[in-house]
Amino acid sequence: MPKISNKGIQMPESPIRKLVPYAEGAKKRGTKVYHLNIGQPDIKTPEVALQAVKNFDIKVLEYSHSAGFESYRNKLSAYYKNQGLPVDTKDIIITTGGSEALMFALGSTLDNGDEVIIPEPFYANYNGFATASGVKVVPVISGIETGFALPPMEAFEKLITPKTKAIMICNPGNPTGYLYSEAEINKLAEIVKKHDLFLIADEVYREFAYDGLKHYSVLNVPGLEQHAIMIDSVSKRFSMCGARIGCVVSKNEEFMATAMKFAQARLSPPTYAQVASEAALDTPQSYFDEVITEYVDRRNTLVQEMQKIEGVTIANPKGAFYCIAKLPVKNADDFAQWLLEEYDFNGETVMVAPAAGFYSTPGVGLDEIRIAYVLKKEDLIKSVEILKEALKVYKN
Amino acid sequence: MPKISNKGIQMPESPIRKLVPYAEGAKKRGTKVYHLNIGQPDIKTPEVALQAVKNFDIKVLEYSHSAGFESYRNKLSAYYKNQGLPVDTKDIIITTGGSEALMFALGSTLDNGDEVIIPEPFYANYNGFATASGVKVVPVISGIETGFALPPMEAFEKLITPKTKAIMICNPGNPTGYLYSEAEINKLAEIVKKHDLFLIADEVYREFAYDGLKHYSVLNVPGLEQHAIMIDSVSKRFSMCGARIGCVVSKNEEFMATAMKFAQARLSPPTYAQVASEAALDTPQSYFDEVITEYVDRRNTLVQEMQKIEGVTIANPKGAFYCIAKLPVKNADDFAQWLLEEYDFNGETVMVAPAAGFYSTPGVGLDEIRIAYVLKKEDLIKSVEILKEALKVYKN
Ligand SMILES: Cc1ncc(COP(=O)(O)O)c(C=O)c1O
Ligand SMILES: Cc1ncc(COP(=O)(O)O)c(C=O)c1O
Repeated sequence: MPKISNKGIQMPESPIRKLVPYAEGAKKRGTKVYHLNIGQPDIKTPEVALQAVKNFDIKVLEYSHSAGFESYRNKLSAYYKNQGLPVDTKDIIITTGGSEALMFALGSTLDNGDEVIIPEPFYANYNGFATASGVKVVPVISGIETGFALPPMEAFEKLITPKTKAIMICNPGNPTGYLYSEAEINKLAEIVKKHDLFLIADEVYREFAYDGLKHYSVLNVPGLEQHAIMIDSVSKRFSMCGARIGCVVSKNEEFMATAMKFAQARLSPPTYAQVASEAALDTPQSYFDEVITEYVDRRNTLVQEMQKIEGVTIANPKGAFYCIAKLPVKNADDFAQWLLEEYDFNGETVMVAPAAGFYSTPGVGLDEIRIAYVLKKEDLIKSVEILKEALKVYKN
Repeated sequence: MPKISNKGIQMPESPIRKLVPYAEGAKKRGTKVYHLNIGQPDIKTPEVALQAVKNFDIKVLEYSHSAGFESYRNKLSAYYKNQGLPVDTKDIIITTGGSEALMFALGSTLDNGDEVIIPEPFYANYNGFATASGVKVVPVISGIETGFALPPMEAFEKLITPKTKAIMICNPGNPTGYLYSEAEINKLAEIVKKHDLFLIADEVYREFAYDGLKHYSVLNVPGLEQHAIMIDSVSKRFSMCGARIGCVVSKNEEFMATAMKFAQARLSPPTYAQVASEAALDTPQSYFDEVITEYVDRRNTLVQEMQKIEGVTIANPKGAFYCIAKLPVKNADDFAQWLLEEYDFNGETVMVAPAAGFYSTPGVGLDEIRIAYVLKKEDLIKSVEILKEALKVYKN
């Protein structure tokens, strides 16, 4: 039998993959499962986007331009400018989700064996994209004690080798919910300029910034134009995860020309989804205001209720819709499995994502979980109650 | 300024990329350009697919399963079985176009520096996928003299090294239109079994087989189950290139589990496009009959007219909708550019794809072009007339 590749063997599985059969088992037993484990928002997709697809009249469903519809890129440029980001049409390539944008960014900046430094915990699929691209993730640890603030510059500098080609951040962060301050972004800017690296910023949660804090994009840093690569997506912003539309944005022309070659090889991003995404740009501000209000309310509820549980530490997230909680358990993996396999509280249980899968350093985050607050408030309250009761009876 | 990757530098450009500005120039001068250079069919997308999207009522555009809708995979399995291909639901992962299926197949079977043998000329983007995956394409030449038949087995065996992990074919071929016979597929089967390699078959043009010939899939070869990987797409079959839906199919469970990890990293294929693709499976047979009749008619016209031009050799394609023509020119690249930059016949000209870009061996195919017969008959006749007149005045 022919052998699959080592790369294939090394491709990581999703941190919650192992739990899926247990969740199915729980449902089969009639137990209701609250999903705190996924980043699929329950928020309605803007009507204007859904309608645009219904009204899209064509005879032939053709390939689009490899960089995406020009009309969409133009409108997106205007959208960014309106948000204070100096993005021209030529600085944008539309991709199949932020996921593909990340692949293009890694492929265009790193060769096989090259290294990208990423503050951990980080979005678990970065490991998959790195493995698929043949590049190495070098984690720099950020901890719950500091609320996942940017590690000190020395921590980065210690890790820089001749193979280091980029630093990658997620802002605001999945799974931490941490929002980098302007000062932190400026520090990163200094370091990438000093060492001549790219700074890849995954800003797919940009709009989800709370408590009056303003998101500060890498595109806003003066003098960082040749280093900054921004990754974006419609998935969360417009609750359009199934569209599969994102983009990669940079002022570095050589980078853009290179990313464009990756884009041409795969021909084009999906056409229907571009129609929806272009129309989504007309979503009224009131939609976002409501969404933000809703998430802040959910976050407040979640954090407040979690803090009431003895032995739990929770970082108060300032953005996105995730947070990390440290539990009084030895192994959150076991605990998460036990919740699904053996536990129920009045016929209900919860599914959480063990946080170890978001760290690249082995043995770190073993007692932490990631909670996505994409459920409505009442369900969050119930979920936390279940966690609380479960922790009382769980035997480490 | 940070440097882009060598991989990025090596990413090939599309063979027609350089010609695009000249085509734009011609249009600006008011010259009508017939596009013989692209694989975007003018055939109508089945109404049932377009309607399904219009009727798709949702509140939230969600991620689908990473392997694609289960309902779609079930229906696709039934479709394949109906076509005589023994494909179960579990053998299918829905991908973002055949393009992504090719990336998953290469990534799951080849490591950095590994080799895949491909008969050339081949679909130019194979070079891009290989470069992006860090693997090496080893071409085995097939020539217009044999109508692009499968090279002798010795030619393959001479190229096999310890780094060879797979043989990849396109059947029927882009850019050749060549349809491999059952005997040829069986020979390939023998060789991959003997050397324990994967056989990746790009069968996206499977339905486009002419002259009463039947397409013979790698999935039909008894005993090849653990070696065969089939790449498919809705792009050409249903004239739905903009959907961006394809799939990777294999009976090899280890391979499928590995490809699934790549699929999970990028979350899911596009939702709207899956709705269209699932519905497209209800397209009546009459649609295909008409399409095939149309393509055969176009092919006959094209080949007949081209053969009338002195000094032209053309391989009569038995499948897909491309063919290679050898022209009495030294450099088809120059000729193609000249057609757009300087020439017109009564205000009209043609854009062709120089074939050198489809060969991996330098210096081969310099006097050949690829013609896609995706235009209606009258336009094809005009296009060939333009080529004929142009060749009379073109100075080598
Ligand atoms: C941090 C982060 N980046 C990128 C993505 C990829 O999203 P998509 O490919 O749907 O745009 C996600 C999805 O959850 C994410 O959380
Ligand atoms: C031989 C071949 N394979 C794969 C593809 C990729 O097609 P898609 O990604 O649209 O399915 C094409 C497109 O032209 C092709 O010609």
